Amino acid sequence: MSDTEIYPNSAALQRYKLVIAYDGTSFHGWQRQVSADNGELRTVAGAVTAAMQRVLQQPVELVGASRTDTGVHARGQVAHFDATPRIPIDRLSDAINSRLPPDVEVVSAEAVRPEFHAIRDAKSKQYRYRILNSDRRPLERRHVVWHCWWSLDVNRMNDAAHRLIGTHDFAGFANAGHGRTTTVRTIHDCRVRRRAEESEIDIVVVGNGFLYNMVRIIAGTLVDVGRGQLEPSDVDSVLTTPDRRLAGPTLAPQGLCLEWIEY
Amino acid sequence: MSDTEIYPNSAALQRYKLVIAYDGTSFHGWQRQVSADNGELRTVAGAVTAAMQRVLQQPVELVGASRTDTGVHARGQVAHFDATPRIPIDRLSDAINSRLPPDVEVVSAEAVRPEFHAIRDAKSKQYRYRILNSDRRPLERRHVVWHCWWSLDVNRMNDAAHRLIGTHDFAGFANAGHGRTTTVRTIHDCRVRRRAEESEIDIVVVGNGFLYNMVRIIAGTLVDVGRGQLEPSDVDSVLTTPDRRLAGPTLAPQGLCLEWIEY
Repeated sequence: MSDTEIYPNSAALQRYKLVIAYDGTSFHGWQRQVSADNGELRTVAGAVTAAMQRVLQQPVELVGASRTDTGVHARGQVAHFDATPRIPIDRLSDAINSRLPPDVEVVSAEAVRPEFHAIRDAKSKQYRYRILNSDRRPLERRHVVWHCWWSLDVNRMNDAAHRLIGTHDFAGFANAGHGRTTTVRTIHDCRVRRRAEESEIDIVVVGNGFLYNMVRIIAGTLVDVGRGQLEPSDVDSVLTTPDRRLAGPTLAPQGLCLEWIEY
Repeated sequence: MSDTEIYPNSAALQRYKLVIAYDGTSFHGWQRQVSADNGELRTVAGAVTAAMQRVLQQPVELVGASRTDTGVHARGQVAHFDATPRIPIDRLSDAINSRLPPDVEVVSAEAVRPEFHAIRDAKSKQYRYRILNSDRRPLERRHVVWHCWWSLDVNRMNDAAHRLIGTHDFAGFANAGHGRTTTVRTIHDCRVRRRAEESEIDIVVVGNGFLYNMVRIIAGTLVDVGRGQLEPSDVDSVLTTPDRRLAGPTLAPQGLCLEWIEY
């Protein structure tokens, strides 16, 4: 049998949707980029594209839903691409994974309608910022978390978090460089939870979209509230002014993880 | 004020009990040892002793309750030592920790009666063997777990685990080299739990004492039962013969953690 008998539409392009998980520690973020000397930096999109091109034996252009920064992790990044089918869809993710390094994984691959767009069709996203809230935790020190030695008041943090929910101008929670025409976003949920067994505090944020560094600045603001440097009501001032200098610092990338994207 | 005014009994030796946690990945086990060329290997007892001697400014001999092997972790290792008091007991663990590398921590330090003995007085110990039961988990791959790609049936594993509970001759679950006069031990509890969120299977074993490699062989036997290589009833044969060859393999050290010791 020839390829065309097995895959009758092999000449036609098919659109695919991938869900991708990665430990961002050793990647220069999601987006492909070249270094100062024109070498290609190690990026998630670059690694996945290279593996896909080996599997599908054709050039492939990957469009990712979120351009996660250097050091930021994902459990549910979404990307789409078009390709001439070469192998059965139920074997695609295994085939790609067998050619990927251990810090990135295709969680699922599916054929979608040609109009599907990873960026435009995203309805909401969940991010989690994980804080290891303890002096020393030798067994957890290599986890993908941010270490924080200050004592944090989770009730105060939740008071502040609740004030973020709703549709607001989040310009005060964004760093320059977002390049968006509007800075209005809707936060559906924002919650802080202490997981005592792991000495961990998790900040979960769900929204319809996020500005540049927005979750890391929200996390930095909630930590400042938790340690008493800011008041919960200061969140209202950041939203109404909206003045970036009134918010907390941009926390380090290693605590941040893109958990899922809903379409 | 001189030292003797602050610590009136500074000349007398005091016995101390330490609870110690460590990531065993980069240690040659607990017990101090020299390499072939007479250099001292990096061990947990060596690292803690060196830090203590700097804090207490006297030679110290540390007696650990369990001689954990290379690569094995602990959350609740216990050790005792005698020393002339030099700093207040409530500052001792912080003082030692400030001189320890990040993969080991003194969880607590207390002054105990001079008869306390970390090995002899131990009534029971809990070990946990953690299995990452998933093809790929980029975000968990650096955790202190053992990766297992086989599909495991936790119900079958628990059937087998339950048969270990009680007082038995565990010679079939020990590797040569234990050097114990009796191989009879009492297992108080042995349970297998699937933690779906983490793609993890945990084997918890509580007993009054353990032979050489005993928990790792129990874990290897339960994994063989879980994947269908052994039957739950085969555990009974290992206990009655007692023939090491009938049990499963000795699983890798990185999944094993000494959790606590009761006195």
